[in-house]
Amino acid sequence: MTKSNLRDLSLFNNDGAIFMGAQRDIDQSRVSLLGVPYDGTCCFRPGARFGPSAIREDSYGIETYCPQLDLDLEDINFTDIGSLDVPLGDAELTLDYISDATNILLKNNLKPLIIGGEHSITIGIIKSIITNYPDLIMLQLDAHADLRDEWLGSKLSHACTMKRCLEILPSKKIFQIGIRSGTKSEFLEMNNSKRFIQHTLGENAKSLEEALKSFKGRPIYLTFDLDWFDPSVMPGTGTPEPGGYFWGDFAAIINVIKSHNLIGADVVELSPKLDTTGISSILAAKVIRSLIMLLDKSS
Amino acid sequence: MTKSNLRDLSLFNNDGAIFMGAQRDIDQSRVSLLGVPYDGTCCFRPGARFGPSAIREDSYGIETYCPQLDLDLEDINFTDIGSLDVPLGDAELTLDYISDATNILLKNNLKPLIIGGEHSITIGIIKSIITNYPDLIMLQLDAHADLRDEWLGSKLSHACTMKRCLEILPSKKIFQIGIRSGTKSEFLEMNNSKRFIQHTLGENAKSLEEALKSFKGRPIYLTFDLDWFDPSVMPGTGTPEPGGYFWGDFAAIINVIKSHNLIGADVVELSPKLDTTGISSILAAKVIRSLIMLLDKSS
Amino acid sequence: MTKSNLRDLSLFNNDGAIFMGAQRDIDQSRVSLLGVPYDGTCCFRPGARFGPSAIREDSYGIETYCPQLDLDLEDINFTDIGSLDVPLGDAELTLDYISDATNILLKNNLKPLIIGGEHSITIGIIKSIITNYPDLIMLQLDAHADLRDEWLGSKLSHACTMKRCLEILPSKKIFQIGIRSGTKSEFLEMNNSKRFIQHTLGENAKSLEEALKSFKGRPIYLTFDLDWFDPSVMPGTGTPEPGGYFWGDFAAIINVIKSHNLIGADVVELSPKLDTTGISSILAAKVIRSLIMLLDKSS
Amino acid sequence: MTKSNLRDLSLFNNDGAIFMGAQRDIDQSRVSLLGVPYDGTCCFRPGARFGPSAIREDSYGIETYCPQLDLDLEDINFTDIGSLDVPLGDAELTLDYISDATNILLKNNLKPLIIGGEHSITIGIIKSIITNYPDLIMLQLDAHADLRDEWLGSKLSHACTMKRCLEILPSKKIFQIGIRSGTKSEFLEMNNSKRFIQHTLGENAKSLEEALKSFKGRPIYLTFDLDWFDPSVMPGTGTPEPGGYFWGDFAAIINVIKSHNLIGADVVELSPKLDTTGISSILAAKVIRSLIMLLDKSS
Amino acid sequence: MTKSNLRDLSLFNNDGAIFMGAQRDIDQSRVSLLGVPYDGTCCFRPGARFGPSAIREDSYGIETYCPQLDLDLEDINFTDIGSLDVPLGDAELTLDYISDATNILLKNNLKPLIIGGEHSITIGIIKSIITNYPDLIMLQLDAHADLRDEWLGSKLSHACTMKRCLEILPSKKIFQIGIRSGTKSEFLEMNNSKRFIQHTLGENAKSLEEALKSFKGRPIYLTFDLDWFDPSVMPGTGTPEPGGYFWGDFAAIINVIKSHNLIGADVVELSPKLDTTGISSILAAKVIRSLIMLLDKSS
Amino acid sequence: MTKSNLRDLSLFNNDGAIFMGAQRDIDQSRVSLLGVPYDGTCCFRPGARFGPSAIREDSYGIETYCPQLDLDLEDINFTDIGSLDVPLGDAELTLDYISDATNILLKNNLKPLIIGGEHSITIGIIKSIITNYPDLIMLQLDAHADLRDEWLGSKLSHACTMKRCLEILPSKKIFQIGIRSGTKSEFLEMNNSKRFIQHTLGENAKSLEEALKSFKGRPIYLTFDLDWFDPSVMPGTGTPEPGGYFWGDFAAIINVIKSHNLIGADVVELSPKLDTTGISSILAAKVIRSLIMLLDKSS
Repeated sequence: MTKSNLRDLSLFNNDGAIFMGAQRDIDQSRVSLLGVPYDGTCCFRPGARFGPSAIREDSYGIETYCPQLDLDLEDINFTDIGSLDVPLGDAELTLDYISDATNILLKNNLKPLIIGGEHSITIGIIKSIITNYPDLIMLQLDAHADLRDEWLGSKLSHACTMKRCLEILPSKKIFQIGIRSGTKSEFLEMNNSKRFIQHTLGENAKSLEEALKSFKGRPIYLTFDLDWFDPSVMPGTGTPEPGGYFWGDFAAIINVIKSHNLIGADVVELSPKLDTTGISSILAAKVIRSLIMLLDKSS
Repeated sequence: MTKSNLRDLSLFNNDGAIFMGAQRDIDQSRVSLLGVPYDGTCCFRPGARFGPSAIREDSYGIETYCPQLDLDLEDINFTDIGSLDVPLGDAELTLDYISDATNILLKNNLKPLIIGGEHSITIGIIKSIITNYPDLIMLQLDAHADLRDEWLGSKLSHACTMKRCLEILPSKKIFQIGIRSGTKSEFLEMNNSKRFIQHTLGENAKSLEEALKSFKGRPIYLTFDLDWFDPSVMPGTGTPEPGGYFWGDFAAIINVIKSHNLIGADVVELSPKLDTTGISSILAAKVIRSLIMLLDKSS
Repeated sequence: MTKSNLRDLSLFNNDGAIFMGAQRDIDQSRVSLLGVPYDGTCCFRPGARFGPSAIREDSYGIETYCPQLDLDLEDINFTDIGSLDVPLGDAELTLDYISDATNILLKNNLKPLIIGGEHSITIGIIKSIITNYPDLIMLQLDAHADLRDEWLGSKLSHACTMKRCLEILPSKKIFQIGIRSGTKSEFLEMNNSKRFIQHTLGENAKSLEEALKSFKGRPIYLTFDLDWFDPSVMPGTGTPEPGGYFWGDFAAIINVIKSHNLIGADVVELSPKLDTTGISSILAAKVIRSLIMLLDKSS
Repeated sequence: MTKSNLRDLSLFNNDGAIFMGAQRDIDQSRVSLLGVPYDGTCCFRPGARFGPSAIREDSYGIETYCPQLDLDLEDINFTDIGSLDVPLGDAELTLDYISDATNILLKNNLKPLIIGGEHSITIGIIKSIITNYPDLIMLQLDAHADLRDEWLGSKLSHACTMKRCLEILPSKKIFQIGIRSGTKSEFLEMNNSKRFIQHTLGENAKSLEEALKSFKGRPIYLTFDLDWFDPSVMPGTGTPEPGGYFWGDFAAIINVIKSHNLIGADVVELSPKLDTTGISSILAAKVIRSLIMLLDKSS
Repeated sequence: MTKSNLRDLSLFNNDGAIFMGAQRDIDQSRVSLLGVPYDGTCCFRPGARFGPSAIREDSYGIETYCPQLDLDLEDINFTDIGSLDVPLGDAELTLDYISDATNILLKNNLKPLIIGGEHSITIGIIKSIITNYPDLIMLQLDAHADLRDEWLGSKLSHACTMKRCLEILPSKKIFQIGIRSGTKSEFLEMNNSKRFIQHTLGENAKSLEEALKSFKGRPIYLTFDLDWFDPSVMPGTGTPEPGGYFWGDFAAIINVIKSHNLIGADVVELSPKLDTTGISSILAAKVIRSLIMLLDKSS
Repeated sequence: MTKSNLRDLSLFNNDGAIFMGAQRDIDQSRVSLLGVPYDGTCCFRPGARFGPSAIREDSYGIETYCPQLDLDLEDINFTDIGSLDVPLGDAELTLDYISDATNILLKNNLKPLIIGGEHSITIGIIKSIITNYPDLIMLQLDAHADLRDEWLGSKLSHACTMKRCLEILPSKKIFQIGIRSGTKSEFLEMNNSKRFIQHTLGENAKSLEEALKSFKGRPIYLTFDLDWFDPSVMPGTGTPEPGGYFWGDFAAIINVIKSHNLIGADVVELSPKLDTTGISSILAAKVIRSLIMLLDKSS
């Protein structure tokens, strides 16, 4: 197997647009956006590769100020480092690239905020994150359990993301929030395991607050599959699942997370060309805006 | 008037795709899907003819397992018998074809689950159903009353569907749920008649439960015009009407129906090309998945 | 069978937009546009009903002046009388309406320029035209022969248009130009009959000129199915057929027709919602502009 | 600076379609629709110029009867006067045209219901309204504060609409309802000023009722930027903002307004081509239907 | 490396639609369609995976009769065997699957007509074809040279297709027709090598006839990348390249090929969702119709 | 009137993507791209403001090598300086900004290649160009004459572009090539004046060669309105006009220009969102690629 040979920041592709308010250089920034335009294992509707550029372009449609958090991106030093070109037909090598890229960010003291691309990129990110944060806890916002062991013979499919993460995560702590689709055995596993928060309609934020009580200060990583949202507000995703969540539900989650120690996040599965109205990209940009603020605030 | 000459199952067109988990043959199946790609009287935006193929294709985007009912399509024997080609410019002959097709299903001991096409197909279906189930009760989920006597001189328009059904239904029992658009006289008729449940926001399922209490065991047929849903979750329909319902509302309806005797159903008015995001077709497929399970469970 | 009861001009629906340069009234006009938003028998992709409104709206994207004919719509008195609402599920009654509407135009000394809608409307129009012009000759620009005797049992399908016209046309003279799709027997009929011009690539206009030589002064009616054009310039049509014609080919046809006696025309099968770029509607509007000028010039 | 020279009703462009149930003439009408297809300062996604024609065309997809108000458009005399052509590159002159047009309506005793176009048109309308109604109160339904003093050097941008209105409104009374996006200073101004209702989720109608209590009988003007709605129900707008409102919220607002004295309104920022499903235009048409009824009822 | 374990025809997925006129079984058929919905290495715009289903569905929009060849699909026994599910993230294993599937067809005496999917699938097909036909000659219709040795480190990218084919093709005979895009070194290679036909505008068919003269009777395989066509007639492809060919150019190519021994073909790179008008899929279906006829005719 | 206060290169907005092969800095570059996302006077279909970003993003879909010119962008030093934010509602001030921006490029010894935006931007560019090149000759590729004196009272509409250029161009030499739409008086002016090349189908390049013979070495500026192309290859433009030109026609024009002294160019009126297939943007990018090469080659 070929190995990725990313070595420094100059290897990122910065020919594209940048997120509203970001800087192209990394001076004194504490948070960095990185796009990973990869959708190589997506089995239903591809196009998550266009997520990073759509989010960046449509970010100019919202304000830099967030009334909920009463913060302004213009007061925050963060960088948008560009995107990572990956070898689309080779899932293993791609994850290698992503791990290396995450490492480079961490070595430069940049909290990673990765924009997918499909969900499987999280496997590569987490592999690097846990070397810095061995007691990491993961939060998953998602419509799907992603706990399959394989998909058509592949272990690196986006349908296996959380299974792979569980295998390498030392703490084995993953809170799965809002899951509403999966196989019978995935639901059995989620229900039986003490690791998981059950999906209780309208009560996600409260349950999460309860669950996180005993983990104050622990490093937390959020992996956000945008199909957690209801298809009506997020039609631009590969596998929309009816019966999802709305902005108010996410706002409540933010309120919980802001008193915890968020050290990184990814936002995945925006497939912008599926939604020509653009409301999906704008929602994703608003999510990113919140997460930049949360990452900047945390220790 | 020419008469339809459908005689047996071999007359259905099976060149198209089939619903996830279905079989092409009818061995021991108790439930059968049948597509009716007809939109000949639709007066505003045509395209419901593409409903059956879109629902079948997009069914592969959801799982076979339903967490709410804790059932899996893979454990259910059901068939997808294909679609019925109809003479689009001749409404009367078309309804004749549909009646005959429904009869063929019933004679083969297959509970019909018909995918429209426009709402007027229900007239043809009911005509056959009531010969097998003379004490039939109908449930209508719909945004529109569909109680007009005629539309531009035509008695078989989709705007007259429930009027025609009322005329031939021996029990005269139709529960109209969620209606929010109609003429003044249609609303008067719905309000005055004891036959109808009033439209009470957020209380549909509870009212339905109450209404059905005295009808335990009676054969029930569900006609589901998908524009009952809010346009935000179901934009792909001919006449979207603001102020509709969401997945949770339908889940509550399922919970009521599952303790009753559902013997057939149709799901109509998906016009998939109007919604290029595909969320409408996926929602319709999830509705169909639930109904297959309800039909298989019932006596 | 119900009969249409159109009696006078006030029965047309004029709630919609009008063609660039037209007047809403009929004072002294010699030419009249009439929309027929009917697509009731279309078997593949419906939407021709939206043709009239799209052509009217997009007509404002071109100029009133035509450099080829050196004429300006602003110097021509023509009216746009609105559209005819038809009972979509009843092909027979619909054609009745169309015949009556054509009669009303003729009685008001207005040369008809009918905007479809699907091709079958021509059957209704011709039925009235030949009472005024018994020695009528027809020109057909089309990709398809339309010579089937029936389609799924229906004799009034748009696939049977020219067959029906041939049956009622006293002269039996129809020049079919540019046909490139049909059944084997349709091609046999076209090739064997002396009635038809063969389809010779790039030579249509010249062959037409030759064919029309002996018919100077005879009343000519043009039925123009827009799928005659290549799908690249006219994607917005129900059954696009590769290998079609371009604007220059039509300009050459105009040059031939302008020295003959055009007494009416229809332009059918624009299905504008299939082409979100709008180039199909604009091309149709430019065709209409030419035909208004040709009709105004002729005796 | 050139001055607009609109003088009478004959100067409006009436080549387009009209709203369902409207009349082209103004006999005895008390309410008049007027389209203003202007989007000249829009900074993100243009296309609001297509609002008036889309609302008119799609109005035929809903009924004339409103079950909430138990009123029918067919019982109301209102006119649709057509649209105002404006010089797109010249914001100042455009507002002049709009003021003059509003004046013409008022002089003809027609309550204005103006369909945008972008939000900046309100500045021109209000300028004329306050000469007739010096004690006017404004209601603003909007996602954005629109209180900027300028945008890229322009004082007439749609982002400055309410700032300009405040400057000329004698009463200085503007109730801003549902605002969820703006700069930090805009939110400060809204929060500090007694002029504004705070944005309280789900409580808008109740707060409005309270706020209007002391203003019974005072003339009220409603400016409705359709991005107040959630992007899921109103994707067809230039700057959709996640976290908005639904039909039920608007229905509650109607219930409050109907016991007050509405003397005019505008509905702006529909950009219909952004939403090919058409649900945005249909929602806008239903809003217009309600407002025609409210305007006709009020003194 | 995992190995594909396809063994017999029952392993193909036949849940989807079939091509017009095809049979689901393989009795006595000499030609077989097979879909390969793979677009795993595509670097610009994915979606070729949807090619097979779009071509099948839209095939019903054209006739079974071809006037150019004077043949009718209804007189030809051919089968549509369904599609091959492939592991999208693993290019090597995918090609293995494709080779095995091709072998199965050959062993069943079925001439393969493979519908892509992206161009790289040709590598897998050819690998099997040359074991049956060691003196095979290839024809390539394409806009791009596809002669790169690698793309972002991958040797199995669709940009390397012809390079890989050249390496394994014993005869080294590939006629590359219509190439108009590539690197400088690709053009150098094409120009210098005697293996290649130069791209001469409008003269492709004549040059091909000349080139094939000395190869009468030799087995010929056609690989047809649909971006050979001009983007105006084939917009639905991943990397459209201005300056391409039209239907008449392909008709001329058919005329040359029909007197040669075509033993297999693939038609790749249709990306149907990029072209909502559907003209790309219909053109592809018409190409397929021609190729079925050519394959059936050849020895 | 406010005055633009652009002073140096740092004032350009460089948050967006850059053209394939370009550099963000200006070191030793001789050619510079600049985007002007302005469509403020466009009267029919807006959206040309999205031209610059679409051309940049889609440039990655073509190669850097041009087989016709046998040149490679990778061997050319050119910069992409970003885009110019303009005050959309104020045409006069906008043109001022554009003049100043052009001046800055010229002072930095960068040959301007401006990407529109609508055609009126040419007025601002030419105003600066002629101070450096008083004997400038203009070439116009366009479907429309653009010789109106005003449009709805505005002198700066894109319909007046060439009229305004003529007024300020000292040489009065403008070659208008391919014009096929205009008013009667515009055609009269073009035909009568010796300044203009007549529009002769298929002979444009030859006529241009003839016309330019006596101007060897004279500075030439090309203004390219992309609606010169046929709508089938360039649907993504505001006012597509049937009967246009193809890639081969442009390639012939390039062959003429390459032996002349091109000192600047603009490419305007791409409205990319009108064409979701992307073929319009890709064609525009290929045009830009050619022009970069021509500008780099010229003295």
